[in-house]
Amino acid sequence: MLATEKRTYPDEALLREKVPALCRNFYQLGWVSGTGGGISVRRDDIVYMAPSGVQKEKITGEDLFILSRQGEILVRPANEALKLTECAPLFSAAYELRDAGAVIHSHSSNVVLATFLAEAVDEGLSELRFTRLEMMKGIQGHGYFDTYVLPVIDNTARECDLTDSLRRAIERYPQSPAVAVRDHGIYVWGRNEDHAKTQAECIDYLCEIAWKRKSIGA
Amino acid sequence: MLATEKRTYPDEALLREKVPALCRNFYQLGWVSGTGGGISVRRDDIVYMAPSGVQKEKITGEDLFILSRQGEILVRPANEALKLTECAPLFSAAYELRDAGAVIHSHSSNVVLATFLAEAVDEGLSELRFTRLEMMKGIQGHGYFDTYVLPVIDNTARECDLTDSLRRAIERYPQSPAVAVRDHGIYVWGRNEDHAKTQAECIDYLCEIAWKRKSIGA
Amino acid sequence: MLATEKRTYPDEALLREKVPALCRNFYQLGWVSGTGGGISVRRDDIVYMAPSGVQKEKITGEDLFILSRQGEILVRPANEALKLTECAPLFSAAYELRDAGAVIHSHSSNVVLATFLAEAVDEGLSELRFTRLEMMKGIQGHGYFDTYVLPVIDNTARECDLTDSLRRAIERYPQSPAVAVRDHGIYVWGRNEDHAKTQAECIDYLCEIAWKRKSIGA
Amino acid sequence: MLATEKRTYPDEALLREKVPALCRNFYQLGWVSGTGGGISVRRDDIVYMAPSGVQKEKITGEDLFILSRQGEILVRPANEALKLTECAPLFSAAYELRDAGAVIHSHSSNVVLATFLAEAVDEGLSELRFTRLEMMKGIQGHGYFDTYVLPVIDNTARECDLTDSLRRAIERYPQSPAVAVRDHGIYVWGRNEDHAKTQAECIDYLCEIAWKRKSIGA
Repeated sequence: MLATEKRTYPDEALLREKVPALCRNFYQLGWVSGTGGGISVRRDDIVYMAPSGVQKEKITGEDLFILSRQGEILVRPANEALKLTECAPLFSAAYELRDAGAVIHSHSSNVVLATFLAEAVDEGLSELRFTRLEMMKGIQGHGYFDTYVLPVIDNTARECDLTDSLRRAIERYPQSPAVAVRDHGIYVWGRNEDHAKTQAECIDYLCEIAWKRKSIGA
Repeated sequence: MLATEKRTYPDEALLREKVPALCRNFYQLGWVSGTGGGISVRRDDIVYMAPSGVQKEKITGEDLFILSRQGEILVRPANEALKLTECAPLFSAAYELRDAGAVIHSHSSNVVLATFLAEAVDEGLSELRFTRLEMMKGIQGHGYFDTYVLPVIDNTARECDLTDSLRRAIERYPQSPAVAVRDHGIYVWGRNEDHAKTQAECIDYLCEIAWKRKSIGA
Repeated sequence: MLATEKRTYPDEALLREKVPALCRNFYQLGWVSGTGGGISVRRDDIVYMAPSGVQKEKITGEDLFILSRQGEILVRPANEALKLTECAPLFSAAYELRDAGAVIHSHSSNVVLATFLAEAVDEGLSELRFTRLEMMKGIQGHGYFDTYVLPVIDNTARECDLTDSLRRAIERYPQSPAVAVRDHGIYVWGRNEDHAKTQAECIDYLCEIAWKRKSIGA
Repeated sequence: MLATEKRTYPDEALLREKVPALCRNFYQLGWVSGTGGGISVRRDDIVYMAPSGVQKEKITGEDLFILSRQGEILVRPANEALKLTECAPLFSAAYELRDAGAVIHSHSSNVVLATFLAEAVDEGLSELRFTRLEMMKGIQGHGYFDTYVLPVIDNTARECDLTDSLRRAIERYPQSPAVAVRDHGIYVWGRNEDHAKTQAECIDYLCEIAWKRKSIGA
């Protein structure tokens, strides 16, 4: 279908520049070292995804997958070695259940260290509770005196096996724009890629404060 | 008033370049992640302010508000979605009470971690006391053997509600070019934007030393 | 032999650009400060090596040594002051025993701090054991529920004296793409320079988590 | 003396580029924030010095002072507001007593945190002892099994008042290319500016390991 191949998608040119730039930004922040982490952006019914298992700070616009919102691959990268990320169903969960416009997956050490401090609440589920921190205000719907509860699900052998518990956590914690994964990292979403980034930065900051605060017993 | 709209303000071209560059610098330092923090610069009776609730490292010169020293908005950004920061009355306090030339608001984790160590002195007020640290010399009016007292006020639900206690702290601690806010960050000012930056760097350094020193019990 | 001098080697132009760029990257990561650390890349039977005892972040493509896989120097840098690294036999060990395509030597403080936590298993040998950390998946052949064992050999007075114990560790721990050296750093290899970098980043991350986790007693 | 004013000094063009570049590098490393720290380079009998009390990462080649080795100012910056650093006699001590080619003064928090761990040995003098760390090899004349002793002198109210104790420490510790100042930072020198930088990086690394090691009780 030649016609399909020449089709352009919403904001395609923009996102083929912006997604690689965001990945370089995330690399500087230590969120995607060692090929870890990822990002996906949605525009209307079209979803862009960074490829799996490659150095995120080195990807180019040509390396993106384009999918339908239902998960069907519409455009593959020219480089046939590139694979769709195992995170795809996890990204889709946020699109489906929260109408997210973008999802960031980070392996931030701040988050992982904080997950070690989470309190178990159920089988395979624990929580990090934050209160009285100004940066909570950056997380949609939260004020300084509120409690922001970040759900932390247990990790699994394969990333796609996280899907069920991630979906359950998304449904159980409607106030949280993120689900952390113990020993692993975090999925954070927002209205669009900029909003997802600022949500991710706020939560990363909360996690940084949590573990460093523990280190000084304060 | 066409004539007013074409008016240029003191150092306008310079500051439309410099304020965004400072914001990128502050992002690298971790002071303004997640849309947090801000900066304002005064020239004579004109005040420039970075907008609220946006990624500070991405703002351009076009995004600045220009106000009179009394707080009246003279020029709005072309982008109508941009809002004046809630910090405006806090910035104004330093302009009014200290004749500051610039004010930086940072969410630095170093400062927030240090505020956890502050000692209560009054209702809603605590203090961080620093002595025998060379970097104190960078803070106007302080020597190595002096004690630099950084006031720390309690945080409030809304940023504008900090105004009263910030003003009281400014008046009570005339030696300090900064007031920290517990669980939140810091307001630091100086003669101009360069001086405010170096004051902010010195105090950030003192706070970094304070919490890391605690972590090694030294 | 004029003819030999004009010969070009596999990917020579590429690597004369890429190796210096990787060194700048490693400097940013804190792996090669103070002239420490190094990198070598193999293509077929040809081996490229960064020179010894110089600021790694400043080397240029002209500064590389080119050797045969057997260790014979084929091309010296034009700058005669540059010396072949003492790490050469250590790099060769990974080429010979693991058919590596590239080897990175890092002095990362994360790794050195982690080596202080290693448990002795034999004369001159200790181990760091990692389990239940997602980033282990980045290390070839390891899953989340596995245990990744990073061998840690004792350091020696001269770098070349590490060769025997490094070779023994390589043979004893066939699952590990790296051998750490107590109080010193790490040797990490991969199929090629990109793979070696991502292996190095994953292991560095594991070491970072290990020592920071210790600092919070979690 | 018009003729004198047009005179050029050894490597003048080179150093008017390189010194500002080094200052930007040091700013990235956190060594010269808040106008702290400094650098001086000697060529033959001519000494270049960065100015005092300004943002080191912003200086340009025009901002340097040029002095005779004896300390006489030969060329002042065109910007008359710039002042000669109070460190000048401290830099001179290393030129005179060690024939140094460059001296770096850093306020690195790694060094300051390490000075808190130094052991008192005499009135106003303490020591940090390092052994069994590979990076010691980067410090001229030291091997892995040696002990590198970094003298730490007490700080004084004014930087120039450090001169006597710095000179005494330089004479008492001929093996050390550096003298740390408690609560303050460090003076490090080398054959030239590159060597001084690598010595400074090695010692900074040792200090980083020292305090972080303390934080994990290892």
